[in-house]
Amino acid sequence: MDLNADLGEGFGHWTLGDDKALLDVVTSANIACGAHAGDPDTMLAAARGVAIGAHVGYRDLAGFGRRFIDVAPDTLTNEILCQLGALQACAAVAGARISYVKPHGALYNALVRHEAQADAVVDAVRLFDPRLAVLGLPGAVWLKRAQVAGLSVRYEAFADRAYTSSGTLVPRGLPGAVLHQPAQIAERCVQLATEGWLTSIDGRAIRVRADSICVHGDTPGAVGIARAVRDALVAAGVSVRAVPRVDASRSIA
Amino acid sequence: MDLNADLGEGFGHWTLGDDKALLDVVTSANIACGAHAGDPDTMLAAARGVAIGAHVGYRDLAGFGRRFIDVAPDTLTNEILCQLGALQACAAVAGARISYVKPHGALYNALVRHEAQADAVVDAVRLFDPRLAVLGLPGAVWLKRAQVAGLSVRYEAFADRAYTSSGTLVPRGLPGAVLHQPAQIAERCVQLATEGWLTSIDGRAIRVRADSICVHGDTPGAVGIARAVRDALVAAGVSVRAVPRVDASRSIA
Amino acid sequence: MDLNADLGEGFGHWTLGDDKALLDVVTSANIACGAHAGDPDTMLAAARGVAIGAHVGYRDLAGFGRRFIDVAPDTLTNEILCQLGALQACAAVAGARISYVKPHGALYNALVRHEAQADAVVDAVRLFDPRLAVLGLPGAVWLKRAQVAGLSVRYEAFADRAYTSSGTLVPRGLPGAVLHQPAQIAERCVQLATEGWLTSIDGRAIRVRADSICVHGDTPGAVGIARAVRDALVAAGVSVRAVPRVDASRSIA
Amino acid sequence: MDLNADLGEGFGHWTLGDDKALLDVVTSANIACGAHAGDPDTMLAAARGVAIGAHVGYRDLAGFGRRFIDVAPDTLTNEILCQLGALQACAAVAGARISYVKPHGALYNALVRHEAQADAVVDAVRLFDPRLAVLGLPGAVWLKRAQVAGLSVRYEAFADRAYTSSGTLVPRGLPGAVLHQPAQIAERCVQLATEGWLTSIDGRAIRVRADSICVHGDTPGAVGIARAVRDALVAAGVSVRAVPRVDASRSIA
Repeated sequence: MDLNADLGEGFGHWTLGDDKALLDVVTSANIACGAHAGDPDTMLAAARGVAIGAHVGYRDLAGFGRRFIDVAPDTLTNEILCQLGALQACAAVAGARISYVKPHGALYNALVRHEAQADAVVDAVRLFDPRLAVLGLPGAVWLKRAQVAGLSVRYEAFADRAYTSSGTLVPRGLPGAVLHQPAQIAERCVQLATEGWLTSIDGRAIRVRADSICVHGDTPGAVGIARAVRDALVAAGVSVRAVPRVDASRSIA
Repeated sequence: MDLNADLGEGFGHWTLGDDKALLDVVTSANIACGAHAGDPDTMLAAARGVAIGAHVGYRDLAGFGRRFIDVAPDTLTNEILCQLGALQACAAVAGARISYVKPHGALYNALVRHEAQADAVVDAVRLFDPRLAVLGLPGAVWLKRAQVAGLSVRYEAFADRAYTSSGTLVPRGLPGAVLHQPAQIAERCVQLATEGWLTSIDGRAIRVRADSICVHGDTPGAVGIARAVRDALVAAGVSVRAVPRVDASRSIA
Repeated sequence: MDLNADLGEGFGHWTLGDDKALLDVVTSANIACGAHAGDPDTMLAAARGVAIGAHVGYRDLAGFGRRFIDVAPDTLTNEILCQLGALQACAAVAGARISYVKPHGALYNALVRHEAQADAVVDAVRLFDPRLAVLGLPGAVWLKRAQVAGLSVRYEAFADRAYTSSGTLVPRGLPGAVLHQPAQIAERCVQLATEGWLTSIDGRAIRVRADSICVHGDTPGAVGIARAVRDALVAAGVSVRAVPRVDASRSIA
Repeated sequence: MDLNADLGEGFGHWTLGDDKALLDVVTSANIACGAHAGDPDTMLAAARGVAIGAHVGYRDLAGFGRRFIDVAPDTLTNEILCQLGALQACAAVAGARISYVKPHGALYNALVRHEAQADAVVDAVRLFDPRLAVLGLPGAVWLKRAQVAGLSVRYEAFADRAYTSSGTLVPRGLPGAVLHQPAQIAERCVQLATEGWLTSIDGRAIRVRADSICVHGDTPGAVGIARAVRDALVAAGVSVRAVPRVDASRSIA
């Protein structure tokens, strides 16, 4: 099982989250690419040590990429291309390469249903490097399009979020949507990793496909939760490691 | 002799210059990389047809990169890295690659003397791709550093600018600093390309080293001047073409 | 009848439209406030000579304010407040004051139906200066809210756009949506100003309420059309002048 | 004696410093105006409770206004005008008004000597509202120009900085430049407030003119130092309060 978290989310003089602590815990880092957060300094600093994901987003520093923007698909493709290119340049200096692409914030949510923007992002990934994997929520439109386009698709689950019985996330704001107990969260993750299912908010067992578990680092206690998840997985005998790059796995085959 | 001009200097809804007309005339395009001008759409549109130069600049859209910014060298290195990465991503989609790097505006001027910023830009080029050439004014500190760093250095002359007898440009604002007559400008360029010298503003013959001549496109009549230069060079039997990429020339040797 | 047009839509080194020619024709200028276009220099230059409208928009220079952004209402209120404050500071230096507020681009379209954003903009205007008028399309939700809030509401018609028989604009992209003949456009405007009705795209006479006619200046021929409209109105005996400021009209009463 | 500190230095999703704790300690708040930090939300939140200063700076979010920018004087005037207008709009909503102007970061340093930029900022203040006071370091060029222009000039001292025997700040980076002991800092401030002198780094007594003492809030322990200073001043019988607005003091006279 892979553990991913958002890193490099500062900008200029501002910082966010505890990147150093997270890098000790996770196996994959979603690095902000300068559009919603991040700048050349944070990108270079974050592109070290674990598998690198491009955390691409809307061009909206003032809104942290958390506001839907009705950007034209062609422009979105080109913006994602440039974000990937900028991050890849930083990664290369650190002797690394981007492994996967994960959308951020409002773009993450939009790509669940918005077909034109979904195609636009898939186009950008395919044009930039078809060996990049894409990471997102099972069922999202953009992942279906990515699969048709021949990209390697990986699914993630959220350690600290409740699920409905139909397998979607309980929307933030509803009671019980976010879990806070490290032990409970860790136990869910072990169950997910070893048996492939979770208990929904109304008590049913639901199958959830996950190659990676997303943990957070920007709230008090978040790093502690992430560490609890990792320790519990290791204790349960789960191999905690990044999903290999596509070209690496191909060369093995 | 190479002919270079600035292209892709729009931003969002704004345009600047006549890119299409210039692409018929020049052999190298200095493409704005999004920091002082340019956006993903303009980068992708400009990265077609001629040799591609990265026109890197200070991060200052409001000032068009024409104001000196006392940016820290490490940050400057990382900013240039990201600009190069973003443009390379666009160029690759067009089946092309960046050939050279030319600083823009206030950065161009700063690198003539500012040692720390000169080293910062050379570092960025070297780290990104040491096969990229660098293009600038003979005598500039950054080109000396680039040579020491093993980069391929190319020199440019300005078609429409007067020179002092010591070989520097007559500062804009002084009388006679900018030439306007297409025929006169074209004749100077032929002399430069075939004999390697120019007449200074005080009437002396000065040697000027030039692998490329810079023409402009964003003022009325500029495209006409660029075309006059090209036609005159061709009529004089000068081969007008981009300097080959470093790797290409190496593979020939 | 008032004639309004967008002015000051440059940014930094970029220009757009022919402000000088437009200032000779219109009686009200919608001045970009820096969020979607405009900067302190353009604001100060534009805030001269005619009635000043604040052309407020989404914070999106890269998109020219033409992309819907799902910004939180409180943030939108505060952003509009700051845009108004910045423009008022420039207007005051020119010895003038803002007379009215008109939303730009995607915000203009959103406020026709988006209730939360409509309230947010009305709040900003009311908090900044309740004597400012608001200018928009008849029927727009935000104008209804503005009326309830006690603001002075003014309606505009579009000189070069076709109307449906229910009084809405024929969407751009549909055949016949945009008119191009100066004489035809001018004639419609005279009919509107003197008789209060227009012919819809399917040939019916529809009543259209208009205190102001919007003309454009950023396309070839646009200034010519604006001038034709003005000349025709004057020739028909229509008084072409800005709607008086609210405080001015109150002091008369 | 007045106590001033920087507030509202967040941007979008990012925060900086502990504004709430500082508002309990200081009597004047230097509020970032959106150019180097701050956004409409932070401006509105900060414009409450104490005397409001406009903390104006270079337009450089990526650099937090800490990098000198060679901006043209006219443009600088207009940029400061817009920053003042935006902050005033927010202050007015909170029922308040700007009392004074203090430059931030690299602009603060530049205005000590840079005559053209000094004149530009003084022009902006004078044009916006000549009743605003200006706050800075004794001896700075811009304060001399402000005095000539008829503005009310106020001087500040730095609680935690060592002074040379000629009365200038010991540059950061030199040993002993920054003081860290709350008790020592508080004692110095009392001496300054009650007797008008400080001990320089080489042990001499130097006269320092100060209407306000600047404390910081964005480093660990900074709020504690600020509180120690205030408590010591109060214990010494010093009246800790904002300098009255110019119009208020005039109305008294």
